[in-house]
Amino acid sequence: MNLDDLPIRDDLRGKSPYGAPQIDVPVRLNTNENPHPPSAELVADLAEAVGRVSGELNRYPDRDAVELRAALADYLGHGLTTAQVWAANGSNEIIQQILQAFGGHGRSALGFEPSYSMHPIITTGTSTEWIHAAREEDFSLDPGKVVAAIGEHRPDVVFVASPNNPTGTAQPLETIEAILDAAPGMVVVDEAYAEFAREGTPSALTLLPSHPRLIVTRTMSKAFAMAGTRLGYLAAHPAVVEALLLVRLPYHLSTLTQTAALVALRHRAELLGTVDALRRERDATVDWLRSKGLAVADSDANFVLFGRFPDRRAVWEGLLARGVLIREVGPPEWLRVSIGTGEEMAAFRAAMEGVL
Amino acid sequence: MNLDDLPIRDDLRGKSPYGAPQIDVPVRLNTNENPHPPSAELVADLAEAVGRVSGELNRYPDRDAVELRAALADYLGHGLTTAQVWAANGSNEIIQQILQAFGGHGRSALGFEPSYSMHPIITTGTSTEWIHAAREEDFSLDPGKVVAAIGEHRPDVVFVASPNNPTGTAQPLETIEAILDAAPGMVVVDEAYAEFAREGTPSALTLLPSHPRLIVTRTMSKAFAMAGTRLGYLAAHPAVVEALLLVRLPYHLSTLTQTAALVALRHRAELLGTVDALRRERDATVDWLRSKGLAVADSDANFVLFGRFPDRRAVWEGLLARGVLIREVGPPEWLRVSIGTGEEMAAFRAAMEGVL
Repeated sequence: MNLDDLPIRDDLRGKSPYGAPQIDVPVRLNTNENPHPPSAELVADLAEAVGRVSGELNRYPDRDAVELRAALADYLGHGLTTAQVWAANGSNEIIQQILQAFGGHGRSALGFEPSYSMHPIITTGTSTEWIHAAREEDFSLDPGKVVAAIGEHRPDVVFVASPNNPTGTAQPLETIEAILDAAPGMVVVDEAYAEFAREGTPSALTLLPSHPRLIVTRTMSKAFAMAGTRLGYLAAHPAVVEALLLVRLPYHLSTLTQTAALVALRHRAELLGTVDALRRERDATVDWLRSKGLAVADSDANFVLFGRFPDRRAVWEGLLARGVLIREVGPPEWLRVSIGTGEEMAAFRAAMEGVL
Repeated sequence: MNLDDLPIRDDLRGKSPYGAPQIDVPVRLNTNENPHPPSAELVADLAEAVGRVSGELNRYPDRDAVELRAALADYLGHGLTTAQVWAANGSNEIIQQILQAFGGHGRSALGFEPSYSMHPIITTGTSTEWIHAAREEDFSLDPGKVVAAIGEHRPDVVFVASPNNPTGTAQPLETIEAILDAAPGMVVVDEAYAEFAREGTPSALTLLPSHPRLIVTRTMSKAFAMAGTRLGYLAAHPAVVEALLLVRLPYHLSTLTQTAALVALRHRAELLGTVDALRRERDATVDWLRSKGLAVADSDANFVLFGRFPDRRAVWEGLLARGVLIREVGPPEWLRVSIGTGEEMAAFRAAMEGVL
């Protein structure tokens, strides 16, 4: 028997599991991880905290993760409260819960592609119809066309990633507001990379008080350098959080995850202290790639999209052969490189010189 | 704005979040937790292991949790291999993934109620139709009626919990085989409580070699005393695991969860060493309740269903007033008590004496 003999859902037939290749190479610049490992102090603190809570691991975790949500609200600021914050195992689970509450069969979600590829995957995985809307040639959004697309399709959920992955650029707040005014349902602004945005880029969190159908999602996997902890979260109106309580799997967030995220939040000065260095590396990477005559999308994230390569696979393979793993993702002819340490980016540049 | 003003899915309207009340009382016998906390040695080992892996928490976890799945296969025995085992954040997420792969809109799942209440909740949460089939008066399954119900409804997924929650009794293997022979799709045998079964109760794992559409689910929340870790898992044909890879959220299982589950498996002699004591307490609880003239379902689990109380709420409240929290769940007129320590069960008996 093989997979084809099983009665899987029709829309899964012929599909491959999602995910970047996990290849063991010296320089991994493919999944937008933060290259800076936690400090010895943080690690010791985490081990100590885990030791402290583990004597009760025979008990279920706090189902509503109240202490963690309070700490996340405090981190986000903007006057947010525990009741406005929700957390799950990565922002993927956050997105899935949003679609389970506000999407489902007979409903639709719209996104502007290229964007985070899990948006359509989780949408169809929840029996929600996915509606593709296009970006401009330069990957920006034209507010007039965006409003027209929403008016035409009347989606129940609109996704807009800002900064956008894999293109890298943040949306002006005016575009988000135009989407909010046009959308008949929920609007999810995916701010997974918000902490990396260029100076003066406002967060959609500022729009929450006036827009009760806005959901802003965040993650501790990127700026917080906690990809292994799997902690995604959101800020929204308290009623939105109540809606998600109806669909969340009970006890979805383990005691260990809640504990680790709290430790990370206490160490946020250290963790977010890496952001400035990564922004500088990013800006230098953009400049260097442009100096080589390549096209590069403006980046507010910890990655850079560059091109155009008629045979991008050859470039990706050439880099891999030189020990540098980047990501073949997004629009054809473009490649995405995550921002690593100074040494890693030097290795990337050297490998690129070899390939070009 | 409140919840009713939001465009949530129609079938969620008027619903309340699932979950037993988390009330802080001296004796908690309501969520089938194992009352024995992990030993100081296990806690120290876990803290040490977390300290060891945390230096890489900036990296995503192993997406396919290969080391953990190998260890789980080794624990389960029956010649199982890594390719036949899958793990997720609690068996709730396992069940959700199964329904996302094999259920969805236009498909159905059938279960024999009263049973685990998350089966229908997760079924409808994945846009799958839930089909209720009844048990006999004594909560057993009549193979003839079971086969007839499956023949009538042709469900895509059949759930059968063995030992069943909240009634407590395991199914004879012949009934499981009759279900497997009749079912046109997948058959999920939920063995969350398998380790507590009475002497001589076989596991459905023995049926895997001859039944490629069988899925056996397990958890580390009960016998393993690791409810706070949230680790559910399953054994099935390798093609079933491949199907679940198509729907699992990438990196769903954190580095900390994988690490903690591996530590627990290394300490399984200690953790499962509590099972015999809990079985003895369970059997004594069954005997004691029967000695009081109460009806009690045979139990292969770490809980006991007993009744019948025309006003079960009054009994539940009477126990709570005496500091003992049990669960008002399952068929009307019945209550469920989880098996705690000897002291906790003495407190339960004393409280029951007061209430009766």
